[in-house]
Amino acid sequence: MVKGFTISTLIILSISVGYSQQHPGLLLTKESVVELRQGVEKFPLLKTSYLEAKAEVDAAMSRPISVPIPKDLPGGFTHEQHKNNFLMLQKAGVVFQISNDEKYAKWIKDVLLTYAAIYPTFDKHPATRSYAPGKFFWQCLNDANWLVYVSQAYDCIYDWLDKKTVNKLNKELFRPYAEYISIQNPQFFNRIHNHSTWGNAAVGMIGLVMDDKELIDWALNGLKIKVPGDIVKDNDGGAIQLKGQTEAGFFAQLDHSFSPDGYYTEGPYYQRYAMYPFLIFAEALANKKPELGILEYRNGLLIKAVFALVDQTNAAGEFFPINDSQKGMSLASRELVNALSMAYHYGGKNPQLLSLIQEQGRVPLTTSGLSAAKDIAAGLAKPYIFNSMELTDGANGDEGAIGIIRSKDLTLMMKYTKHGMGHGHFDRLSFLLYNGADEVIQDYGAARWVNIEHKDGGGYLKENNTWAKQTVAHNTLVVNKTSQFMGKVDDADKTSGTAYYFNAKNANVQIVSAKETNAYAGVAMQRTMAVLNIDGIENPLVLDLFNIQADKEESYDLPLYYMGELMSTNQKYTTNNTLTPMGENSGYQHLWTEAQGSMTGNLMQMTWFNKGKFYTMTSTVKAGDEMLLTRIGGNAPNYALRRDPGFIHRRKAGNTLFANLYERHGFYSRSDEIPVNSFTSITDLTVLHESADYVVVQFELKNGDKYRFAFSMNNKDEKTKHKVQIGNELIEWMGVSQFLKK
Amino acid sequence: MVKGFTISTLIILSISVGYSQQHPGLLLTKESVVELRQGVEKFPLLKTSYLEAKAEVDAAMSRPISVPIPKDLPGGFTHEQHKNNFLMLQKAGVVFQISNDEKYAKWIKDVLLTYAAIYPTFDKHPATRSYAPGKFFWQCLNDANWLVYVSQAYDCIYDWLDKKTVNKLNKELFRPYAEYISIQNPQFFNRIHNHSTWGNAAVGMIGLVMDDKELIDWALNGLKIKVPGDIVKDNDGGAIQLKGQTEAGFFAQLDHSFSPDGYYTEGPYYQRYAMYPFLIFAEALANKKPELGILEYRNGLLIKAVFALVDQTNAAGEFFPINDSQKGMSLASRELVNALSMAYHYGGKNPQLLSLIQEQGRVPLTTSGLSAAKDIAAGLAKPYIFNSMELTDGANGDEGAIGIIRSKDLTLMMKYTKHGMGHGHFDRLSFLLYNGADEVIQDYGAARWVNIEHKDGGGYLKENNTWAKQTVAHNTLVVNKTSQFMGKVDDADKTSGTAYYFNAKNANVQIVSAKETNAYAGVAMQRTMAVLNIDGIENPLVLDLFNIQADKEESYDLPLYYMGELMSTNQKYTTNNTLTPMGENSGYQHLWTEAQGSMTGNLMQMTWFNKGKFYTMTSTVKAGDEMLLTRIGGNAPNYALRRDPGFIHRRKAGNTLFANLYERHGFYSRSDEIPVNSFTSITDLTVLHESADYVVVQFELKNGDKYRFAFSMNNKDEKTKHKVQIGNELIEWMGVSQFLKK
Repeated sequence: MVKGFTISTLIILSISVGYSQQHPGLLLTKESVVELRQGVEKFPLLKTSYLEAKAEVDAAMSRPISVPIPKDLPGGFTHEQHKNNFLMLQKAGVVFQISNDEKYAKWIKDVLLTYAAIYPTFDKHPATRSYAPGKFFWQCLNDANWLVYVSQAYDCIYDWLDKKTVNKLNKELFRPYAEYISIQNPQFFNRIHNHSTWGNAAVGMIGLVMDDKELIDWALNGLKIKVPGDIVKDNDGGAIQLKGQTEAGFFAQLDHSFSPDGYYTEGPYYQRYAMYPFLIFAEALANKKPELGILEYRNGLLIKAVFALVDQTNAAGEFFPINDSQKGMSLASRELVNALSMAYHYGGKNPQLLSLIQEQGRVPLTTSGLSAAKDIAAGLAKPYIFNSMELTDGANGDEGAIGIIRSKDLTLMMKYTKHGMGHGHFDRLSFLLYNGADEVIQDYGAARWVNIEHKDGGGYLKENNTWAKQTVAHNTLVVNKTSQFMGKVDDADKTSGTAYYFNAKNANVQIVSAKETNAYAGVAMQRTMAVLNIDGIENPLVLDLFNIQADKEESYDLPLYYMGELMSTNQKYTTNNTLTPMGENSGYQHLWTEAQGSMTGNLMQMTWFNKGKFYTMTSTVKAGDEMLLTRIGGNAPNYALRRDPGFIHRRKAGNTLFANLYERHGFYSRSDEIPVNSFTSITDLTVLHESADYVVVQFELKNGDKYRFAFSMNNKDEKTKHKVQIGNELIEWMGVSQFLKK
Repeated sequence: MVKGFTISTLIILSISVGYSQQHPGLLLTKESVVELRQGVEKFPLLKTSYLEAKAEVDAAMSRPISVPIPKDLPGGFTHEQHKNNFLMLQKAGVVFQISNDEKYAKWIKDVLLTYAAIYPTFDKHPATRSYAPGKFFWQCLNDANWLVYVSQAYDCIYDWLDKKTVNKLNKELFRPYAEYISIQNPQFFNRIHNHSTWGNAAVGMIGLVMDDKELIDWALNGLKIKVPGDIVKDNDGGAIQLKGQTEAGFFAQLDHSFSPDGYYTEGPYYQRYAMYPFLIFAEALANKKPELGILEYRNGLLIKAVFALVDQTNAAGEFFPINDSQKGMSLASRELVNALSMAYHYGGKNPQLLSLIQEQGRVPLTTSGLSAAKDIAAGLAKPYIFNSMELTDGANGDEGAIGIIRSKDLTLMMKYTKHGMGHGHFDRLSFLLYNGADEVIQDYGAARWVNIEHKDGGGYLKENNTWAKQTVAHNTLVVNKTSQFMGKVDDADKTSGTAYYFNAKNANVQIVSAKETNAYAGVAMQRTMAVLNIDGIENPLVLDLFNIQADKEESYDLPLYYMGELMSTNQKYTTNNTLTPMGENSGYQHLWTEAQGSMTGNLMQMTWFNKGKFYTMTSTVKAGDEMLLTRIGGNAPNYALRRDPGFIHRRKAGNTLFANLYERHGFYSRSDEIPVNSFTSITDLTVLHESADYVVVQFELKNGDKYRFAFSMNNKDEKTKHKVQIGNELIEWMGVSQFLKK
């Protein structure tokens, strides 16, 4: 299907040569400019956004034009100056169109002519460390950024310019620049990768402005030339050509980068980054080449992808920090300011998006932004309803997924996706849990302070590999103190987690279950999590059943990165006054053991306190189980890691089951000093049955109520009857699961 | 003066026998009730507060009356039931008066008669661990709480009750109960202590209700009987009789507990607790015995004390967590809800208080609350202006002080008070720094989770003594790894810090300087801090000059408990992968050394990041200086301590000066990922002169500007000329300090 569509679009392209050209036509149109001029007077969000942009441009124009010969790396003068230039040029273009004040057009013209003047005077940026060195920047990626933004500025003054200047700029600056980042650097342009998405968008957008059909074709369909054979990896170690890759260009990016649900295999942090060129070029194509139906491509994939991003956030709009992600990146980012308005305008005007746009407090100065600001001013905004959902991974949606369960204030996310390439973590079957915006069980995120020079220039720290990516840094099983796939990306990339069961139809019993059989040789793992609403308990309970089937006895560590202050446990432990790292590799070198204990009895309970709320984990204990209380931070010179606490449940076993139950309960305010419900409601948790096929557990509340949960792990036919003998009792149920009050 | 006043009040009392009695008359009056009835309809804050109280009382009345025979300790059933009873009775009284619905009066009557019925049936609470066991509670303190609250309820139904019931309750419950906590327990009632404040208020308030002049006299002037000789200490080890104490009763409490500025020697956390009985009894006296002029006593001390509390908060209304304090206790507490409205109504109707009351979101259901709610509804609220100020300690205001300097978003507090008795910390010359509500340099507070059973029943943890009180837990000098006064409270209580200089008249150069010569034998310390606003720097700089004059060489540790994540330092250090405690006592046993380095050059700079802002400390370095990066948490089983970071500047010297400069700079948002000004503006800091009499330092900014600060440490006459020779230059200035741009 995907292939066929690509061919048909080529046909459409070839017959669209005569399409009439208007400027502006990318993000603004003649019609929308008229409306925008009125809108900035009438609609508060648009007015604010416009005045902010105008003030920034006015400030930039008050300084002398500066187009330096390229020399520096990021952080250095020439890099930052060229970056600032493209941001200001784009804004100046919009301000010109809205204000109709020619001084803005003139400034853009002057700056562009300065670029045109120096462009032929040097070969390329002097830095050589990129696999694809750029012109004004050290890598083509930044030059593509430049062209994506500056195309928009050029589009805004194209009709205002005299023909001679247009010809000069087209021939001496833009066409050569577009060729530089495409045919002169196919190793950058012809990949399936976010770098190429930027490259395709840049070349395509300037092509649309200049009505240059060849550039548009390259952008949409890739180059028909081969990448020079000596360049096989990029600077991050990523392969230039994916195995079996036969296509390139924007359509190929769309085909390969997203699942049918709009999930991006690197996770939401990088999806946010990649969305800008995807959407901005798509919006330009929607305006300039509506016959392509780009926004309907793959069942409206791009709009779905925006919704997928929104659905991967906590109550503060922060993305789930899976894979390499800086925590705190959120719907407030500039990329999402564009994305949400665009998804609103082109995606059926879902009024729930308006409330999110309202929170952003600004809109893009485009047709989309106008549309959103207008409808917000008209009072159309509705709260965004966050639903439980499974988002599949893989181009065909059959390579794992993430499962998201929402229930009252709780958000549970379980991850069983593809590895996510170079930015992926070895974290299959890991989960994270939020209470509103508060992390309850955290994912560490990346070991990086993005762009903060103090921290190794703001790039990835070496601890990102040695800690953040390792399995023990996640809330999932570690076998024999080694990471999944022995920590090898190439191996992890070959397979994905396996979605087994996701059911959120019954709001009181929502279940996600997934399997992972490749991460550890001879060890089959299945995690089943159920979010349960029960009468008489204030918050939903989270049941967590981690089943392992293994050929032989192994050592299992199940970490839990709880956030907050440990209140108490019912188990005895001894604390260490001298802290030593837990191991030498696989991330253990970064963990200190603060305390340890041999667990006794059948039950372990641990309560912690975070941001006014209490939380308790109840776990079943088997003979020989140990508990370790850990602290992150060892072997991290220069304070590369946060000192966060963790808990490890350690067990030596072959086939086994870890059964846990998490409860949020009560509250405490430091100005009232009256703790309410500071103890868990759970008095017992028992495994009634565990085998390769079934698990049956029962738990009991303070009030004496007992509940039983039964689950079929290998047959998900909802019509099949299951029987399990427990002591004298024969338990029977139909379908995958049964949850009942005893 | 104080003595004289007490005598004259006795005279007034003796002639006021015939004062006519009206009910209600304590917190409500006949007149205010009429207004309150209208007010709950008209004024939103009052309405909300009334409806909340009514809903609580309705819920309580829907359950059977429960007045159990006393048995349990706090947390146990009988304790919590009696506590809940007094809270609900007080509210029911108010609801009765406002609603005029007799069901509330009848319920109060029924509950009181039940109390009267069981009162004679037992001797006292069975628990024996208090120095003053109570009747319904394990200690008289809680019985006094009961009586303070229930007096208010009784006042509300007094005129509604038949005479026979009044006589019965007076004779069989209230008078005996008042005698129990006074003449039967003088060791509780006749102290200068917050326990006795509660006792005095309780006996006084029920005396006012019953028009019982003897009780009122006891309450105001104490008992003329001697405390039994065998009780000399309370359960916290506090002395029953203060050295030289000759007075007792409410006036004596007022004379001894506060400084003339309204500062309470235990600090704001305990002041907040003690304020309730002080204010509630004073309000009752103001209504019932206006001739006492209680609110004008000691120049309006009680109202001043409320302002002093407000002035000891950060931008979130949280009290400075000095001495034993749980962090987060704030103006939102129930005690302050009463205090702020009362200070408003009786303290000259300062409209700045209204904005704080608005933030509290509720008002007391009293004349004061009515007054505040009414004026807020009338739009009279103004923002509270937080000013720089020095609050003296000691009954006469001559035993040290705290200095508070506010400048833009920064709040600096330096502490050089009395020790503060059993709840005091060994922290003279320590400081803390806020940026708005964010702690920049923290005081650890108490090692306690108040009322949280998980944590040793919610009381003080042993780490409160071994860590939180010790000098090394504070931002002040530790000599030879030993706490001030060798950690002995009795010794510390004998002296106070010495206020030397406080000047906030020039908003751009605000200075606090204080001395401490008793804490360490042979070591005289003086700390001078200046908050400086300089052109071209975004935030005020904090200059910190810690001068030491010592007989011989000592080992100095100057800790700094910065909050946030360490970004970088300009000094080389090595991190430890195995962490061991830094010492065996004086708090060092709780600190791990995470890293250490021998400092080189003349300058040490360290940058950290917290809540979106960057901070840098710049320090002068002397040959042999060492730096240690520390982490709290060693030797604290059961997770008694937070894992907070610290920095220690270590030096071996006799006379010396530690010169530091703190700068808040720039910002970073995780959704923008663009750090702004992440590096300090300070390029140099030099000590030009240090001696016993003078210190002169100079610092330099990135832009090349140089500033010089000179300070006279032993002569604060503003007319004296000072001369210091620095190399070839003779520096001259007049007065204590000079700050200038070079």
